[in-house]
Amino acid sequence: MEKERLEKQIDFILEADKEKNIIRQTHLSENGRRENDAEHAWHMAIMVYLLKEYANEEIDVAKAMMMALIHDIVEIDAGDTYAYDPKGLETQKVREEQAAERIFGLLPDDQGEELKSLFQEFEASETPEARFVRAMDNFQPLLLNDSNDGRDWREHEIGKTQVMKRHTKTKLGSNIIWERAREIIEKHVRKGNIKDD
Amino acid sequence: MEKERLEKQIDFILEADKEKNIIRQTHLSENGRRENDAEHAWHMAIMVYLLKEYANEEIDVAKAMMMALIHDIVEIDAGDTYAYDPKGLETQKVREEQAAERIFGLLPDDQGEELKSLFQEFEASETPEARFVRAMDNFQPLLLNDSNDGRDWREHEIGKTQVMKRHTKTKLGSNIIWERAREIIEKHVRKGNIKDD
Repeated sequence: MEKERLEKQIDFILEADKEKNIIRQTHLSENGRRENDAEHAWHMAIMVYLLKEYANEEIDVAKAMMMALIHDIVEIDAGDTYAYDPKGLETQKVREEQAAERIFGLLPDDQGEELKSLFQEFEASETPEARFVRAMDNFQPLLLNDSNDGRDWREHEIGKTQVMKRHTKTKLGSNIIWERAREIIEKHVRKGNIKDD
Repeated sequence: MEKERLEKQIDFILEADKEKNIIRQTHLSENGRRENDAEHAWHMAIMVYLLKEYANEEIDVAKAMMMALIHDIVEIDAGDTYAYDPKGLETQKVREEQAAERIFGLLPDDQGEELKSLFQEFEASETPEARFVRAMDNFQPLLLNDSNDGRDWREHEIGKTQVMKRHTKTKLGSNIIWERAREIIEKHVRKGNIKDD
């Protein structure tokens, strides 16, 4: 029995490897190449641990880290949906739910259910962990983009309204992180990297 | 005060971004490109969470996950040392200790000390968490290499003695994972992908 269980876990681990090939819009610091989902999730999990003192509510750190690590795994099937792509965002939910069934379904039942509900909890943004991980999901690309003088906003001609709308959820996870994010956003509006619409 | 603390944390987070450019010898599954350190650490942290039931001793999961996430960060300065490179391994310790001082030194003192000692704990392999994370550090590339029909062993002309020596520590973290690793190794010896020396 133990063997079969381990085989299912290994199947999932090898499937997850494909997340390293899902490319995001964000560029790495020092104007590097575009980032992939696995790197983004790694960075977020470290941020969860280091910045947990700023969470608005107390969080279960291991749970929040695992949530960060797997929150984009559905994109192996569903692809990355850019935060400022209205058409993609319309169909995102259905595509990602189907992906969750297939990918988490590779695991033994108990772990498959656990990870699927962790993913759904993240999506719903209704628990302290989900809200804080969402804040990290927004703050991580903001830091990279800031380090590249706002290049990603400029190239996609993003306006302040869009950025502020995305970040409404940052504040729900952490007032302090949101305050810092707002300063960065306003700096880039002044510099013309984000359109003042 | 809070602002200055957050600035130091952000400095570290941006420095850590460089780990995404440290390239390992292992190739991704499906004969993909070579893997980088951040992806490897992401994969390991997920494995810590999913395979924790096989640890020989009870582990603190959040601690072990964070250990996995940061265990290679020193390679930003020290570079990746291939597990089968005797010359590199000789100088590895000194290079990595200097890197730990600089990189973790970017953080506020309390967190810098915490992460440096987490890294040193991993290196020493003397606690349940360190032993289990080490087992994951060995098992993760083994799974990828197995999925690529042993390509990395073949290309580097690795012998069974070397592989078995590396994996002596896998058993200390998990007998069950070691048993599975041994089966994979023996299969590749039979297939000639690992030299039977």
